[in-house]
Amino acid sequence: MNVQTRPPRPPLNGVDTPTLINTINFVAGQPDLAKFQFRAANEWLDGTNSRSTMLGFSGAGGEHKHVKSYSAEGDHPTVLCGADRAPTPVEWLLHALATCLTAGIGNIAAARGVKLTRVRSFVEGNIDLRGILGISDEVRNGYRDISIRFEIEGDAPPEKLQQILEQARARSAVFDVLTNGVPVSVSVSRAQ
Amino acid sequence: MNVQTRPPRPPLNGVDTPTLINTINFVAGQPDLAKFQFRAANEWLDGTNSRSTMLGFSGAGGEHKHVKSYSAEGDHPTVLCGADRAPTPVEWLLHALATCLTAGIGNIAAARGVKLTRVRSFVEGNIDLRGILGISDEVRNGYRDISIRFEIEGDAPPEKLQQILEQARARSAVFDVLTNGVPVSVSVSRAQ
Repeated sequence: MNVQTRPPRPPLNGVDTPTLINTINFVAGQPDLAKFQFRAANEWLDGTNSRSTMLGFSGAGGEHKHVKSYSAEGDHPTVLCGADRAPTPVEWLLHALATCLTAGIGNIAAARGVKLTRVRSFVEGNIDLRGILGISDEVRNGYRDISIRFEIEGDAPPEKLQQILEQARARSAVFDVLTNGVPVSVSVSRAQ
Repeated sequence: MNVQTRPPRPPLNGVDTPTLINTINFVAGQPDLAKFQFRAANEWLDGTNSRSTMLGFSGAGGEHKHVKSYSAEGDHPTVLCGADRAPTPVEWLLHALATCLTAGIGNIAAARGVKLTRVRSFVEGNIDLRGILGISDEVRNGYRDISIRFEIEGDAPPEKLQQILEQARARSAVFDVLTNGVPVSVSVSRAQ
């Protein structure tokens, strides 16, 4: 993207567009800055209930911390014999997808000079629990399919709003991971 | 799993093991009960910040609601020009993985009569942001790899604790989705 030839976009939709474009150009010149590592630490609470904290991450050549330590829990619902103290792990996947695509829409609309007034989405994931319950080896453990439907309102025709969604999908980290998969290694070590 | 031939396991680790086993046997006899749909509804707040709510889901032959409406936000960190009002979408993926595997460990340990005293895990995901920033088409948008390391303490030898982790991994919905991928459809409709 060669932004030098275009007039700079002003901040819009709560996105500091000039800084975002400058950041992209800066990283383009120093690819090592693009290497990030995100982290979560989880502790079991009781039954199927556990809590993760998310604070530190690395990237842009150094270590960073969120402005505060974020935490969230997960649990199984009562119909699956959990205590329902939090959303289920598979609902967190839907949350990750919606927040990723919506953040992209915010950034991309700002970069294209489109003022958004409302963005809503509705995610559904279908799963046959015979997999995780160990009832059938022919049923996968995870979702069979996921769908997300957006409603986007802004000062652009529907075709342009749809193009913004399409670009958000094309550059979504979570959409990529969910649709293409990623290698995950699981290990156990003695408490330190 | 034929539990009739074994003495029933008592509740353990906060898991109502007899009810869990009965539930599995009941669903085994009526596979349609295993069809679940989980949902999240998301609303854009500002910039890259949005909030999801998770309340209703279907399964076990009917509609259900969590004991309360759960909500959570997502945002981009300041180093990526976000407001850092919440964890990033890709951190939510790590949270989903940790809570899923940990819930499995709680259930499986109870079913095997192992009393857990502590379960902690540490998840890391490595990502090259040249993908999502549109700098390189040869770099994927999502994580390159994810690793999760567990520390498990309980009244069983390390080998048995490791087997419990292995079974949790083998029956994890989130591990399956992350490693194998899932079809995701994205659509847009007019506000209703």
